[in-house]
Amino acid sequence: MSSQSPVTSHQSRVVGRPTKRIEGLEKVTGAARYTEDLYLPGMLHARLVLSPHPHARMVRVPREITLAVPGVVAVVTEADLPDGVSSQLLANEEVRYTGQPVAAVLAESEAAAVDGADRLGTAVEYEVLRAVLTPDEAMRDGAPLVAPDAEEDEEAQGHAAVAAQQTQERTPSNVSNRFHFTRGDVAQGFRDADVVVEQTYTTARLHQAYMEPHASIAVPDPAGRAVTVYTSTQGQFYVRSETAEALGFPQQDVRIVPMTVGGGFGGKIVLLEPLAAALALMHRRPVRLVLSRRDDFLLGNPGPECEIRLKSGARRDGTLTALQARMVFDSGASPGAPASIAAILLGGYYKVPHLDIESLEVLTHKPPNGAYRAPGAPQATFAIESQMSVMAEKLRLDPVEFRLRNASDTGDPMPNGRPWQKQGLRQVLQTLQEHPKWRNRVKGDGIGYGVAVGGWPGGVESAAACVRANTDGTFHVIVGAVDITGVATSMRLIAAEILGVDPGLIRVVTADTDQAPYAGMSGGSKTTYTVGTAVKLAAEDARKQILAIAASEMEARGDDLEIVDGTVRVKGTPQRALPLAEILKKSMAFGARYAPVFGNGSIPSPKASPGFAAHLAKVRVDQETGLVQLLDCVVIQDVGFPINPAAVEGQMRGGAAQGLGWGLLEAMAYDEQGNLLHSTFAEYPLPRAMDVPQMETVMVQVPSDSGPFGAKGVGEPPVIPGAAAIANAIADATGVHPYSLPITPQKLLAALRETKRA
Amino acid sequence: MSSQSPVTSHQSRVVGRPTKRIEGLEKVTGAARYTEDLYLPGMLHARLVLSPHPHARMVRVPREITLAVPGVVAVVTEADLPDGVSSQLLANEEVRYTGQPVAAVLAESEAAAVDGADRLGTAVEYEVLRAVLTPDEAMRDGAPLVAPDAEEDEEAQGHAAVAAQQTQERTPSNVSNRFHFTRGDVAQGFRDADVVVEQTYTTARLHQAYMEPHASIAVPDPAGRAVTVYTSTQGQFYVRSETAEALGFPQQDVRIVPMTVGGGFGGKIVLLEPLAAALALMHRRPVRLVLSRRDDFLLGNPGPECEIRLKSGARRDGTLTALQARMVFDSGASPGAPASIAAILLGGYYKVPHLDIESLEVLTHKPPNGAYRAPGAPQATFAIESQMSVMAEKLRLDPVEFRLRNASDTGDPMPNGRPWQKQGLRQVLQTLQEHPKWRNRVKGDGIGYGVAVGGWPGGVESAAACVRANTDGTFHVIVGAVDITGVATSMRLIAAEILGVDPGLIRVVTADTDQAPYAGMSGGSKTTYTVGTAVKLAAEDARKQILAIAASEMEARGDDLEIVDGTVRVKGTPQRALPLAEILKKSMAFGARYAPVFGNGSIPSPKASPGFAAHLAKVRVDQETGLVQLLDCVVIQDVGFPINPAAVEGQMRGGAAQGLGWGLLEAMAYDEQGNLLHSTFAEYPLPRAMDVPQMETVMVQVPSDSGPFGAKGVGEPPVIPGAAAIANAIADATGVHPYSLPITPQKLLAALRETKRA
Repeated sequence: MSSQSPVTSHQSRVVGRPTKRIEGLEKVTGAARYTEDLYLPGMLHARLVLSPHPHARMVRVPREITLAVPGVVAVVTEADLPDGVSSQLLANEEVRYTGQPVAAVLAESEAAAVDGADRLGTAVEYEVLRAVLTPDEAMRDGAPLVAPDAEEDEEAQGHAAVAAQQTQERTPSNVSNRFHFTRGDVAQGFRDADVVVEQTYTTARLHQAYMEPHASIAVPDPAGRAVTVYTSTQGQFYVRSETAEALGFPQQDVRIVPMTVGGGFGGKIVLLEPLAAALALMHRRPVRLVLSRRDDFLLGNPGPECEIRLKSGARRDGTLTALQARMVFDSGASPGAPASIAAILLGGYYKVPHLDIESLEVLTHKPPNGAYRAPGAPQATFAIESQMSVMAEKLRLDPVEFRLRNASDTGDPMPNGRPWQKQGLRQVLQTLQEHPKWRNRVKGDGIGYGVAVGGWPGGVESAAACVRANTDGTFHVIVGAVDITGVATSMRLIAAEILGVDPGLIRVVTADTDQAPYAGMSGGSKTTYTVGTAVKLAAEDARKQILAIAASEMEARGDDLEIVDGTVRVKGTPQRALPLAEILKKSMAFGARYAPVFGNGSIPSPKASPGFAAHLAKVRVDQETGLVQLLDCVVIQDVGFPINPAAVEGQMRGGAAQGLGWGLLEAMAYDEQGNLLHSTFAEYPLPRAMDVPQMETVMVQVPSDSGPFGAKGVGEPPVIPGAAAIANAIADATGVHPYSLPITPQKLLAALRETKRA
Repeated sequence: MSSQSPVTSHQSRVVGRPTKRIEGLEKVTGAARYTEDLYLPGMLHARLVLSPHPHARMVRVPREITLAVPGVVAVVTEADLPDGVSSQLLANEEVRYTGQPVAAVLAESEAAAVDGADRLGTAVEYEVLRAVLTPDEAMRDGAPLVAPDAEEDEEAQGHAAVAAQQTQERTPSNVSNRFHFTRGDVAQGFRDADVVVEQTYTTARLHQAYMEPHASIAVPDPAGRAVTVYTSTQGQFYVRSETAEALGFPQQDVRIVPMTVGGGFGGKIVLLEPLAAALALMHRRPVRLVLSRRDDFLLGNPGPECEIRLKSGARRDGTLTALQARMVFDSGASPGAPASIAAILLGGYYKVPHLDIESLEVLTHKPPNGAYRAPGAPQATFAIESQMSVMAEKLRLDPVEFRLRNASDTGDPMPNGRPWQKQGLRQVLQTLQEHPKWRNRVKGDGIGYGVAVGGWPGGVESAAACVRANTDGTFHVIVGAVDITGVATSMRLIAAEILGVDPGLIRVVTADTDQAPYAGMSGGSKTTYTVGTAVKLAAEDARKQILAIAASEMEARGDDLEIVDGTVRVKGTPQRALPLAEILKKSMAFGARYAPVFGNGSIPSPKASPGFAAHLAKVRVDQETGLVQLLDCVVIQDVGFPINPAAVEGQMRGGAAQGLGWGLLEAMAYDEQGNLLHSTFAEYPLPRAMDVPQMETVMVQVPSDSGPFGAKGVGEPPVIPGAAAIANAIADATGVHPYSLPITPQKLLAALRETKRA
């Protein structure tokens, strides 16, 4: 890791120093306990029966077959769900994708549940209906409608954090969302161009590939009036509102306990919780619903596949004149694809006077898609950044120089007309331009170098946090945000910095929905950025309360005091000091003279702080086999300020590794009947340790005006340009530009052969 | 229930109306789950081996006997406790009371643990030492010292809520605390008196007789760096600090989860938690430690027995001139008796110019005592109120009139010199004086009437609370206070009153120590009084935040708005309204413009609001058998303002029922070797339903200046005068004054015979 000198003026004591993650030891030693490890007396085990057809009508569910299995307690279908409970929790008569749950089998043991579900799985009788498995088929006249009355998924759209020119089609159609962004006169833009490039890019459906499959355990309260769900989720409050709505309960009667998450990456938003809760309430017993890896692949919500027709024009001097695109996302059986945000990014990185981008979300008889780290961004970025390198080639310009000439600056409009908030795209590109590995690159021997840049607008949400003192001088930071990326460690550092105590004296608690101050889902690169600010404010509030007590007890002025080494002391007179524990005991005790030290911080959504990353990829291509090896990757990212540089570096490396997956390896593959062709990680082609090279990370620091200590969200950006940089490196090595992700040896060999033929 | 018209001017909507307890249904249907009902995988069952001797030296612990029992995993003695853990958790070589735990047996099942502990219990070899079982013996020269290096128990003293003139003896002695309060010249006071009465009163050791024995389950965290304890306690924060101290841990590494409590009455403060936690950490497995009823009787912390020598003098006109007393509390093997508070109450109810009260706490080889509802007050009140009735008799004055003539008023000094805070002793007595059952009493046929009054200074503590809105218009009230008396229902009413919503939309959460704002133990009649005020402030804060959002959205002024029926509307223009849920969604969502609605309330200890109760007891005495039947009881209490009159009435009835236990039935009986003579509720003489008459409750309302809506603490007062009123009724019926509690048929017959002989 290297880092530019911090732009921040804050003289930090603990923030900005690489710190081990609090939960690291538990996780690496295998001691951490996940939802699946929870055992509750009287617990029923649930197993789902999944549809084997992408589109069919259920004719008969012969539940007697399963009820005959010893230990099976019940078979629950949609018709069995109580009044008031959403009928969406199980398929009704019509199944709409392979993997859709059609029934739940409840049993005294997991083995019995599996046995019962397997028997039923092969026994349910279906009338198979015509399925549409690609957007092309789905958009044809006369195609069956996948979801005649589907509603738009709020949260997936929330990721966009922007208003879009959305044209909701009101005529029945499988196009469930259509966004159209225009600026200037795109025809004129192309007339102004000296060079025009046009190409179609495709990306695959990717699973988030978390280690821990989805798992939820629901427990009805003793009187059956409420329910608690222990679950692996990125956001307890979102799960709560969805579960309450599905059950027809007020939110206060649903308690979500977020458990240690074994990987989320956008895939752990809400899935099993409402059904588990409904089953538990129906049977008045705890119900455990843990997916097998196969079932998780079948009914999880992976990132969507996408096809992008992209055309751009530029003047001979390297100035972009026009951009035109049509993006089509295959959303599976429910809306929720990132069509809007992808369009905004596709047309947002560069200043371009004339643009016309249409972005469609199309429903098909495939499992619904969901969020995967930087939803829509790797897809859009693969297209635009591949094409920008082609354009630079055609213009005989250095690809970084060409990008710098056109890069959007703070204040430039995005395709939706809104201005870019303060961002560091230019600084990131400049850092890349000056990087020795770029300046001193040497080609040959199948080696090629590629660059790409990508950005994320930065999610924003309101947030609250509490910092509570304990009478021995330790503190609790209480938040409603789940830690999927080490944010708890950052919260600890933030609070320690403000309170002036050792970070080890601070415990960060991810509270459940009965007890937590509100925070949004951990996603969108917004947790440290928003909840971290609330924690900072709460710590400042607690500090102020402590100093007020100390001032009264020590007969000093509050602003003459400081907290150092567990004592409050008069600045410049360190012998006038009171131990923190002594002060705190005066605020929390029988007869205490002062109110309990309990700091609060609460903020509305701050302005967004977009984050940009640029990758330099170095590859070796074996033209005999089509194998591509990523030899090196320099990940340059504007992080604002790294609260915990070790964690930020982890995000950068992890993002780049996932970018490698996007670029070379990963795709959920379906056959022509809509059957998924893999069911384990042995078959799903994740990057392995041997595939991931040593990387170099470079942190650029353009401080955010809103994030704590200048920090901005760092989770999404590093995955975004990964695939594009690799594709450009392959083009550099071979002269052939790949247009379809992942760039497998088969596809690359085919492209190489085609070029030879041409 | 009858109630005087409220003095408060508050036009209440929900507070002040009788409301069913939230947790009532769970409890009465048996659905409530207690600590004992918690099952954790891998859990070890612990059983304690108790000393059969009051004072002995352990010679040999033949643990092999127990380790041979199938399923037994370990035998832990004090020597096995890890470094840093308090050695007080198990007896060291010297045992100091019958029932003291000398070892813990850990086993895979409860049966194995019981078997192992039983075998070891009869096999441990002791050298029996001389024991002192009464304060008289303990104070004799040459008596063995029970606890050479005992420290004073802070919390028990905390109950006093007052500074006392405490004379800590520094020479080794079994007198562990000595308080001495003086005013004027007591000898002169008796010279001024026309009538002097002197008598010795004794009260018994009473068990709190909660239905649920002590139960704790400790769970080490996966990495073994921290511990969680699920426990039946009245105060999670106090348990936490005691457990952390015993383990040598910082407080942040100890999490206490307070479970539903099956009765506390002062007895569930802290007992098993530190040991359970130590055992769990030693063995890296959850450890369940649940006492049997017998063990709970043996090693719980009952209310102490007491002997009071009391002498008073009065002028013929009914004015008290002098009061002299020596009180001796048998504290068992550890300090913690309410010697100070008892002395303050004994000499505090009445104006008396000259007084001299000495109050001693003496250690004996009996189990340590603890708090029991109004610690020290029933004992002191039995003495003073019996004697005041004798004095009234001797002066031929009406006993209520006599009391009114001398009653302390607000501002009068207590024995410790501090003035009584605003209180309603006089109003309570006046209400009694005018009560038809008192005015129209008819004696004869063994019937007698007795009156007594008693008070509690009112505990105070700092407190914090949070009121968090949910996006559907429901709310959570988050507190760190345990609900042992229905306080959660009162918190709900307080929040509903302020927020202007239906109480059913509010859930009250007793949070664990990782997540709760600070609150003290639920005891001392201070929970509603202090935490309720914090809840009120938090609700006001939340309301203010809601109205500010509404004002901005509706373009109105905040103080022109009101919350009615789940909407915020412009006063006088109800059609200009916004649903609460709509407003709240704008504060908690992706991109929300407003900060999350999260109200906070935090207060230092308020001034105390003493609470007085007067009882009128009507008894029938069978002079042949000595049996006394309580026929009626009028419980008159100054409650300030009844937030939930149903709950207040429940406190008044329950207190009077326990007063009946004090008066007629209850005593923990020991033989001469210090062996407890009962081990079940079949033998311990609790009042049964048939013993408790229909009662009448009358609420007097002298509003507190500090409590929410004028409320004051109501838990302690109603038990205090119970025994004295019954004793005075017996005297009224028989002409014989009982001086020893409980007034059993045997004791009463003996007294009646003695009087006949005289």
